[in-house]
Amino acid sequence: MRKPKIVILGAGYGGMMTATKLQKTSAYQDAEITLVNKHNYHYQTTWLHEPAAGTLHHDRTRMRIDSVIDTNKIKFIKDGVAEIKPDEKKVILEGGELDYDYLVIGLGSEPETFGIPGVQEHAFSIRSVNSVRLIREHIEYMFASYNNEEVKNEGYLTFIVAGAGFTGIEFVGELSERVPELCKEYDIDRDKVKIYSVEAAPTALPGFDEELVNYAVNLLESRGVEFLISTPIKEVTKDGVILADGEEIKSSTVVWTTGVRGNSVIEKSGFEAMRGRVKVDKDLRAPGYEDIFIIGDCALVINDEINRPYPPTAQIAMQQAKTCANNLKQLLAGKDNLETFTPDIKGTVASLGGKEAVGLVGSKKLYGQSASMMKKVIDNRYLFLLGGMPLLLKKGKFNMF
Amino acid sequence: MRKPKIVILGAGYGGMMTATKLQKTSAYQDAEITLVNKHNYHYQTTWLHEPAAGTLHHDRTRMRIDSVIDTNKIKFIKDGVAEIKPDEKKVILEGGELDYDYLVIGLGSEPETFGIPGVQEHAFSIRSVNSVRLIREHIEYMFASYNNEEVKNEGYLTFIVAGAGFTGIEFVGELSERVPELCKEYDIDRDKVKIYSVEAAPTALPGFDEELVNYAVNLLESRGVEFLISTPIKEVTKDGVILADGEEIKSSTVVWTTGVRGNSVIEKSGFEAMRGRVKVDKDLRAPGYEDIFIIGDCALVINDEINRPYPPTAQIAMQQAKTCANNLKQLLAGKDNLETFTPDIKGTVASLGGKEAVGLVGSKKLYGQSASMMKKVIDNRYLFLLGGMPLLLKKGKFNMF
Repeated sequence: MRKPKIVILGAGYGGMMTATKLQKTSAYQDAEITLVNKHNYHYQTTWLHEPAAGTLHHDRTRMRIDSVIDTNKIKFIKDGVAEIKPDEKKVILEGGELDYDYLVIGLGSEPETFGIPGVQEHAFSIRSVNSVRLIREHIEYMFASYNNEEVKNEGYLTFIVAGAGFTGIEFVGELSERVPELCKEYDIDRDKVKIYSVEAAPTALPGFDEELVNYAVNLLESRGVEFLISTPIKEVTKDGVILADGEEIKSSTVVWTTGVRGNSVIEKSGFEAMRGRVKVDKDLRAPGYEDIFIIGDCALVINDEINRPYPPTAQIAMQQAKTCANNLKQLLAGKDNLETFTPDIKGTVASLGGKEAVGLVGSKKLYGQSASMMKKVIDNRYLFLLGGMPLLLKKGKFNMF
Repeated sequence: MRKPKIVILGAGYGGMMTATKLQKTSAYQDAEITLVNKHNYHYQTTWLHEPAAGTLHHDRTRMRIDSVIDTNKIKFIKDGVAEIKPDEKKVILEGGELDYDYLVIGLGSEPETFGIPGVQEHAFSIRSVNSVRLIREHIEYMFASYNNEEVKNEGYLTFIVAGAGFTGIEFVGELSERVPELCKEYDIDRDKVKIYSVEAAPTALPGFDEELVNYAVNLLESRGVEFLISTPIKEVTKDGVILADGEEIKSSTVVWTTGVRGNSVIEKSGFEAMRGRVKVDKDLRAPGYEDIFIIGDCALVINDEINRPYPPTAQIAMQQAKTCANNLKQLLAGKDNLETFTPDIKGTVASLGGKEAVGLVGSKKLYGQSASMMKKVIDNRYLFLLGGMPLLLKKGKFNMF
């Protein structure tokens, strides 16, 4: 008797958590499970602002997939996904193809450029281990270059972070902590370095509690960050950015953090999508496909209370993974009463670098060190859910005080 | 009664050692002594291949000038030297000017490009703390960039060291030790990385003992270095180098180490010079000027045995500093029987990275760990001569075994 084939695409929060859940519940006894990922490691996307600024080593944010998944139970293929052919129940990889009976799409997001010219060519993005190592080294290279120029290029020491949402603010927080170290390392006056947080919306951290936003902005300003709020960027060039009013800010380092869209593979594969995200059914399946689950950044789930989509977060991806794994178990057992996905948003904490953060947990506002501690608790909880105590001990953040 | 003014230009091996000698012998009681240097720190030029490759932090190779010189006794001015006007007994600085009664020129060298096109624009050189920090960061940036390219650029992982003389070989040695670490840090196969040592002369380390050369070449080859001997470079471009036979090697990192010439200030100031070096009198004074001493890389001293100039080394600069300081003392005392400078070449050791080196001390050949130890002894001896036990303890190399 042939076992049904489950293929999981992507080893981000959603894909990894689905795989570990299936492993823990012994689903591999009833199905042949394959996890596909571009790299042989999983990384915590929500930590990437730290290695991008150089305040945490990237190896602290990643782990080998086979250190978490038992590859005797779940097969792992290191390959990129080119396209899904849902009507043929087939996945085209860069180096081969796979059949499936059930597919889990957890392919993650891509940066949203809103079609602004030059972003693709000239801006950096915080999206992967490779991309953040490059940002870290690029920043350091700019510092190293400055004193070697006969005519000083101030753009080398001007850092523009486009977007003051969560990722932008968290990155600016780390960068403001890192810059004084770099100034010391390269014999450069701190006053020469400029950090701009540029946001088109009328506030930093749009949608976040106003008091917390003020706390964050004041703190970051005290570290020398300059906020340009209600300031859309019209174009990114090799020399910097051009603002909507025509003003140019010279900068050799523009980091683009204005949000994400779903994976381009979604659209390429013919799914009906909005900015790469599929409005999934209540059981997380793609409309019209009983054999395809979509979770994480490619899944669109509407928050009925405000009639707007939930933002794509690690928290929601992990909760979806749990529902997805349960529903796969049901299908493997031949049942069709699938679980409805209900998000349970516990709160949000934005780190601001050092021992600082702001957050909302339930209805409680957290500031400073208690928020920073909570952020680490959240990060550690994830590691525990994913790989239990061994993983927590290996990769956890314990410098709490 | 007005004290005579001694001005020392440059705080390299020669200038620093002259200043410390004058300080130790209390010459500052009889003269107003001023040391001028572009930076407020002194660095050990002969160590720079290490921070260039990233195997030693640059702060280990430098020290604040006022941590060695007592600036109550010897005045220190941080400024660049634009020109010397010997007939007016005046030095034009970038930010002012100075009169002198006695001048010591210890301005150091500049890279020799032999007029090869593109070297100035596209090649790096190992010449200062600023320049080697840039090389270190550039190399790391290339590794960080590689995995982010859709179409892999092999030039990012190809490193060309032009010149297999002392500096070139020492740098290649460090780089061959550093590359495996960088491969690990950036998830790159060691096999993808190429290191070329390109030399126009028919041997690596021209002029060095043949057995020692063979040892060095074999060792470096075993670490993956490829030697291109008897291979002149015709041009350096932004994409790599073009060899004399027209072949192109693609590389984003060309480090130029084909030797040095004297400082351009020498020629600009009207001294008769060969490649920026003045053939000094036996007492180290510039011909025709009783009040100007030239030491270090700008001084040309002929080795009568072979009728060729001594190569400009730290060793010879330090010995010249001693003679120069003695002669200044004589002049201050109103005597004119100046000491003749006689070099006493004790030997040469080239480090090859890790615990490896080759050297000739007296007539004894040293290899491997004993040569490497000797190299560290030499480096430590310099620190001791310059700043005594406190400096040695602070900056010395003690990882001998």
